[in-house]
Amino acid sequence: MSRRKSRFLRKPVEPFAVTAGLSADDLLTRMERVSFQGRNLATARRIWEKMLASDATIFLGTAGALSAGGMRLIIAHLIEHRYVDCLVSTGANLYHDLHETRGRRHFIGSPTLDDAALAAERIDRVYDTLASEDEFCRNDEWIASFVLKLERRPYTTREFLYKLGEHLWNETEHHGILTAAYKAKVPIFCPAIADSSIGMGLSQGRHRDPAAGQIDVIGDIIESANLVIRRPSTASVVLGGGTPKNFINQASVQAEFFSDKVGGHKFALQIVTDVPHFGGASGSSLEEAQSWGKLSIESEKISVQADVTVALPLLVAALESTTKDLLAKRKRPEFDPSGPALVVNGQALPEDHFQES
Amino acid sequence: MSRRKSRFLRKPVEPFAVTAGLSADDLLTRMERVSFQGRNLATARRIWEKMLASDATIFLGTAGALSAGGMRLIIAHLIEHRYVDCLVSTGANLYHDLHETRGRRHFIGSPTLDDAALAAERIDRVYDTLASEDEFCRNDEWIASFVLKLERRPYTTREFLYKLGEHLWNETEHHGILTAAYKAKVPIFCPAIADSSIGMGLSQGRHRDPAAGQIDVIGDIIESANLVIRRPSTASVVLGGGTPKNFINQASVQAEFFSDKVGGHKFALQIVTDVPHFGGASGSSLEEAQSWGKLSIESEKISVQADVTVALPLLVAALESTTKDLLAKRKRPEFDPSGPALVVNGQALPEDHFQES
Amino acid sequence: MSRRKSRFLRKPVEPFAVTAGLSADDLLTRMERVSFQGRNLATARRIWEKMLASDATIFLGTAGALSAGGMRLIIAHLIEHRYVDCLVSTGANLYHDLHETRGRRHFIGSPTLDDAALAAERIDRVYDTLASEDEFCRNDEWIASFVLKLERRPYTTREFLYKLGEHLWNETEHHGILTAAYKAKVPIFCPAIADSSIGMGLSQGRHRDPAAGQIDVIGDIIESANLVIRRPSTASVVLGGGTPKNFINQASVQAEFFSDKVGGHKFALQIVTDVPHFGGASGSSLEEAQSWGKLSIESEKISVQADVTVALPLLVAALESTTKDLLAKRKRPEFDPSGPALVVNGQALPEDHFQES
Amino acid sequence: MSRRKSRFLRKPVEPFAVTAGLSADDLLTRMERVSFQGRNLATARRIWEKMLASDATIFLGTAGALSAGGMRLIIAHLIEHRYVDCLVSTGANLYHDLHETRGRRHFIGSPTLDDAALAAERIDRVYDTLASEDEFCRNDEWIASFVLKLERRPYTTREFLYKLGEHLWNETEHHGILTAAYKAKVPIFCPAIADSSIGMGLSQGRHRDPAAGQIDVIGDIIESANLVIRRPSTASVVLGGGTPKNFINQASVQAEFFSDKVGGHKFALQIVTDVPHFGGASGSSLEEAQSWGKLSIESEKISVQADVTVALPLLVAALESTTKDLLAKRKRPEFDPSGPALVVNGQALPEDHFQES
Repeated sequence: MSRRKSRFLRKPVEPFAVTAGLSADDLLTRMERVSFQGRNLATARRIWEKMLASDATIFLGTAGALSAGGMRLIIAHLIEHRYVDCLVSTGANLYHDLHETRGRRHFIGSPTLDDAALAAERIDRVYDTLASEDEFCRNDEWIASFVLKLERRPYTTREFLYKLGEHLWNETEHHGILTAAYKAKVPIFCPAIADSSIGMGLSQGRHRDPAAGQIDVIGDIIESANLVIRRPSTASVVLGGGTPKNFINQASVQAEFFSDKVGGHKFALQIVTDVPHFGGASGSSLEEAQSWGKLSIESEKISVQADVTVALPLLVAALESTTKDLLAKRKRPEFDPSGPALVVNGQALPEDHFQES
Repeated sequence: MSRRKSRFLRKPVEPFAVTAGLSADDLLTRMERVSFQGRNLATARRIWEKMLASDATIFLGTAGALSAGGMRLIIAHLIEHRYVDCLVSTGANLYHDLHETRGRRHFIGSPTLDDAALAAERIDRVYDTLASEDEFCRNDEWIASFVLKLERRPYTTREFLYKLGEHLWNETEHHGILTAAYKAKVPIFCPAIADSSIGMGLSQGRHRDPAAGQIDVIGDIIESANLVIRRPSTASVVLGGGTPKNFINQASVQAEFFSDKVGGHKFALQIVTDVPHFGGASGSSLEEAQSWGKLSIESEKISVQADVTVALPLLVAALESTTKDLLAKRKRPEFDPSGPALVVNGQALPEDHFQES
Repeated sequence: MSRRKSRFLRKPVEPFAVTAGLSADDLLTRMERVSFQGRNLATARRIWEKMLASDATIFLGTAGALSAGGMRLIIAHLIEHRYVDCLVSTGANLYHDLHETRGRRHFIGSPTLDDAALAAERIDRVYDTLASEDEFCRNDEWIASFVLKLERRPYTTREFLYKLGEHLWNETEHHGILTAAYKAKVPIFCPAIADSSIGMGLSQGRHRDPAAGQIDVIGDIIESANLVIRRPSTASVVLGGGTPKNFINQASVQAEFFSDKVGGHKFALQIVTDVPHFGGASGSSLEEAQSWGKLSIESEKISVQADVTVALPLLVAALESTTKDLLAKRKRPEFDPSGPALVVNGQALPEDHFQES
Repeated sequence: MSRRKSRFLRKPVEPFAVTAGLSADDLLTRMERVSFQGRNLATARRIWEKMLASDATIFLGTAGALSAGGMRLIIAHLIEHRYVDCLVSTGANLYHDLHETRGRRHFIGSPTLDDAALAAERIDRVYDTLASEDEFCRNDEWIASFVLKLERRPYTTREFLYKLGEHLWNETEHHGILTAAYKAKVPIFCPAIADSSIGMGLSQGRHRDPAAGQIDVIGDIIESANLVIRRPSTASVVLGGGTPKNFINQASVQAEFFSDKVGGHKFALQIVTDVPHFGGASGSSLEEAQSWGKLSIESEKISVQADVTVALPLLVAALESTTKDLLAKRKRPEFDPSGPALVVNGQALPEDHFQES
């Protein structure tokens, strides 16, 4: 060996040292110097801090059974305290949130339960978690009834979900994702709403009145791209992949078609369990996203391969210790998502054409 | 050991014997007696044969980058020869199909290419596969122009995609998924169309005319459930999970709300790479689906954990050898997907209310 | 729905609530009521506590690049404070531990480094972690020199590794896995020692003297089974699967052949990333282990699907808060691993025949 | 877009076209132009052909429950027809092979069987495959009896397994891995023999005679490295990862310490289900192996992410069609593995020191 150390061998791994009373902050701080996914999770915290310190509008994407699985109040917390500015979600996560906000529950089960016995009792299983199908049916009816209160015109999912959160808050005054977003005026997009029980509720609204339940998902595309065009920069926090991951990236790609100033997300972090090597979007690498311009070539980014139910509580608990000032000082956009056009810092975004800022 | 064999030890594993000139049929026949995913793939062939021999309407769900990855002509083949009756797809698979049907190509790359260099040349990477972003932009414009030819009213994705396939066929006369479905009059649903480049094309149509690009995804929910209600039984073939997997199951669940005769899919097979233990829908087990009534308790079902690009060519090549008679004799539904209402065996399905047959 | 709740719907999921200053203990306590792998990790803590409260001898199995990845001082901590009684490890984890105890380091790298450039500088990569190959060569020589100090007779890996830990401590007085095990008199087995750099060091010892470097791995089998026979009960903590997982289970199976009193581990927890459905031992389920008698049918058990570098720091930090009394009071075996026969509570275990207690 | 095509966009993906009567050869030939793991599997065939056309000594590593899972006669076929020159295996694959060669069977079960019921009937489960524990016990005794026939001296696993294959052939005249290797004089190494039922059989031999059951795993290290030193070049075919994968690579690394002429395997292919991002050796990338010198920087290599029970039958069936001439003409080493020293092309390899050729 040459006497001089290689440029590659500069920063040693520091073995994690267990001591009494470690906080979430301590854990992630020590994990910054270990390897593999532990290090990646610790790095995710630092990148999220940088997002908060920047001028980026932060998109949060949520896929997987996060609400059924006990993560909904963390997501509500992220919205309420504006760790994020805009939510893109699967319908299921919003639906299971609504279920609990309405006072119903999910239950602790096991993956080895007898599904025939569950079916006989009309209980639905999500891996190790259970819910009453009858309660789900009543949610659908509740949504259908709400749908009938709306005007007989197309709503983007963003406008529809704002109204839904408003109605839910007025009726329950309970904390959750939809109600937190309503109160914080944080827009929610749900590009695959037709593939969810919220979509089923909408379809049941239309069953009662053929003019009800009109959803304009194409308007969402335009609005989300205009949001990216309007903001100085963007960042992406993806939990679980799925349609939210792609929709957040698509907004960036679509925005570039209409504005030379848009150059991909400036920061990106994802916590996923899918892998890149089968070619699917959920597991695709953040490097690959750079080839498309979804992410800037200079972006700071990290991918964490972990179940969200393990990684997210630790990550957010650690952020909670270190971001008080960052949250207080951050330059966040102020929205009014209550009308047909999304208003950002007092200016309405068109939903029928792309518009350079 | 007792002299009597246990009831558990009845059917021995038969080690796979390599001989010269094995066909796809031989391979899967011999794999029926091995273990693990090899056996599951071989079982999938037998279950698909049973679907074809039954009165079931067969849904095919396609997620993951199957078209970019060289699987589109297999899917077109399944549609053309009516191995399946109804396609539910991600937008990306239809878009990448359209790209090739229009004469453009995807290219063989590598997962270790330099994404900054690719971005500089405007080349988009999907794991080990590449495409020209400029060609993609021209597809988007082509779709936008087509959108402007349509009436200024909402289209379900099913009606829209039929018209798109028709237009594509008339312009190219090339074989692909959209064109095969057009010619075979096989309906296609795309519940997450807003999360795809087809959605982007639609949004660009609207950019040119605010009244264009109206998509009614709630109508798709009603229509797909009415299809399940109308048919004597259903079956599900899922490639890759994603929104198509859930949408096919949702149709079954939604149908049960309006018809006591509906009891879940009678057959189900899925080829997925996701796993059940993180709780996401893509990897969820077929047993779990039974608790929801998505699948009948008596259904025959198999889950294969494999990349579709490995499993599908072998599976379909083997089916091709053994299903000639089954395909000729099967009681398949005849569709007319050309209008606002889907016509099945001469009878229109409502798209604004659920209707028992 | 009947008015009475189903027996399945008794214990609701409690959404994780983020508050300021959460400790590792708080995190896992709140995670007990979420779903999926978060719940499993929280359950693992409770099962480990039960192990400590019981009369079980606790085996720890370590596979994967845990030492290179910054986990070695956690493992040393578990040994020192007798969270565990016996270590079964891959050779690599002991070798990378020795590397750091000798004052060398692993370094923080990235999975996308240029491997040709690394090879040119003689730097070895383990995913995102780096080490100097020249330093590795000098470790091998150091081990070879130590081997030449030993008697020219076969050593079980257990005896050999005790002597290695002793030598390492005497030379360095540094804390690590091997030195902690030496000081705590905790036996270490390394069934696949021939598949590791420790084995390479042994082979280089023999290169210098053909009578040196004799390892008796068959003696390890007998000794480990006799240990299971002798102890009132056993428990298994498996990190990463591999040969340690199977060896710990094999000891239980082998012990049953010679003693009717042995009935499989009473507790088992594993943190693995492999999955059951490909049939390999690393990912095999704990239920499957029950069919073999590796685990008792009544055992309490949990499998966590997570990277050890994410899960272990959190798990052990939480245990550290709640187990002080349990550790002080536990009925742990006292070993003398310094000679050809392992001595347990003053009684030597044969290494050349199985012996009922 | 510039008129000239990018250098990246040269070779288009060719969609797989289904036609009647496709052979394994046809399947893989068409899969060369698709994407993801399908392409990788097709590439694996071409790389194996190049191995056969070269002067490389081909190591085959087998881990995972391949023999129990119906793959043993494929492995025997690879040995008999000298697709490979040297086997490195887990003990389990050799043990389950011996079980069937002795006329016992594994049985088709299911992953959802009741393990308590299986345990009650003394049936052992390997995911979806079953075997009689009583038959396993009799195998162990049979091995123990064989062990007592051997000289009371240490045997490398290579010598021991040759004798075991010889004994098995003489007693059964049945085809299998051990018997094929015996007849073809192909050496087998089993570095983790202590972590298997073959090890248990050895330990039971020693139980009957304390001088029996001596295994010299350190000799295996020296012998395997000397084999690499002696041969002009080497290649690696890895199924499933595990200790065989590392042992084959270790032989290369160890050989380089003693010979400047050794430069890593010239070809490498692996079929694995583990992933790189958790840092474990089973899933480690072939690029990473280049940093260590396990693989030559110029090596041709491919990693296939697939279950061996899906990929191997197809791969070997296709090779069978195209390699007749290659097998007939190849420059393969001729071994005599019957004595304490492995003889290669008439020259004995030392097992007590490393020796440059």
